[in-house]
Amino acid sequence: MSSGGKLEVILRVLGFLLSFLAAIVIGVGKETKVVPITISSQLPPFHIVVVAKWHYLSAFVYHFATNVITSSYGLLSLMLTLSSKNRHNNMLTLLIIVLDTVTVALLSSGTGAAMAIGVMGYQGNSHVRWNKVCDTFGRFCKQVAASAVLSLAGAIVFMLLIILAVVGLQKRPK
Amino acid sequence: MSSGGKLEVILRVLGFLLSFLAAIVIGVGKETKVVPITISSQLPPFHIVVVAKWHYLSAFVYHFATNVITSSYGLLSLMLTLSSKNRHNNMLTLLIIVLDTVTVALLSSGTGAAMAIGVMGYQGNSHVRWNKVCDTFGRFCKQVAASAVLSLAGAIVFMLLIILAVVGLQKRPK
Repeated sequence: MSSGGKLEVILRVLGFLLSFLAAIVIGVGKETKVVPITISSQLPPFHIVVVAKWHYLSAFVYHFATNVITSSYGLLSLMLTLSSKNRHNNMLTLLIIVLDTVTVALLSSGTGAAMAIGVMGYQGNSHVRWNKVCDTFGRFCKQVAASAVLSLAGAIVFMLLIILAVVGLQKRPK
Repeated sequence: MSSGGKLEVILRVLGFLLSFLAAIVIGVGKETKVVPITISSQLPPFHIVVVAKWHYLSAFVYHFATNVITSSYGLLSLMLTLSSKNRHNNMLTLLIIVLDTVTVALLSSGTGAAMAIGVMGYQGNSHVRWNKVCDTFGRFCKQVAASAVLSLAGAIVFMLLIILAVVGLQKRPK
């Protein structure tokens, strides 16, 4: 296997692992907290149980779904790369570059969506009167941030794979 | 100019226009509403003025910024494509493919962020107690949705440019 071929295998393993881990980290994201609520100063505070789960928010569901799809594709493309006997098959090369590009778009949009809701959770927004929730669900918010970083790193790896494929095409003898 | 070259120019013009329009549509996004607030049933309702602006929400600022950056790059890359005398300059081709890939990632993440906050505005979320705001700011929400669709279309155009460049490299005589 050429040095470009070895690098491609390493990057595909890395791309798969990063988006797989991103899906796991958000997928296990759940936090239960007991929060005191004061109704009247003459009464002792109530205690209610509040739960944060990733599938309560559609942006996190989308982020999870993009990472499941792209890690599955990462594994599939790794197997295709390893089993492909004809390294100069134009149709297969083009198909993989197209799917790598779709993967970059999916991972970027999922990361963008998760980060947008995550930042809103950290900061809140007075204009739309959405209160910050990360002071209650600190661990859950950290999991969302970690998953977004993993997913972003996955997107960068798939971008490197596109660049590697283009350099390979430029160097390739006819 | 070859048919691939003409198609590239058409796609770059389209990519520039779509992300430029996406930036304009979100950039002019502002809605002022007078909302009645009832404090007591014995008093007539108050009327307060509420304003929605794109730069109140960091996700929309990010979405605007990505579209400004990518439409500027779209115009620059169009000029480079039109002025480039050596169509087989490997370094320039590689640089443009790298920047097209970064553009796809930027537009996708910006669209993802804007859509995540837009969907939250339409639906609200009872778990984090964020109320929907699009029943008050209907026109503003439609502008956000239109800008996100334009930006997504822009991302697809830049994906097509990557595919066109790869097909061009595969067909190219050495």
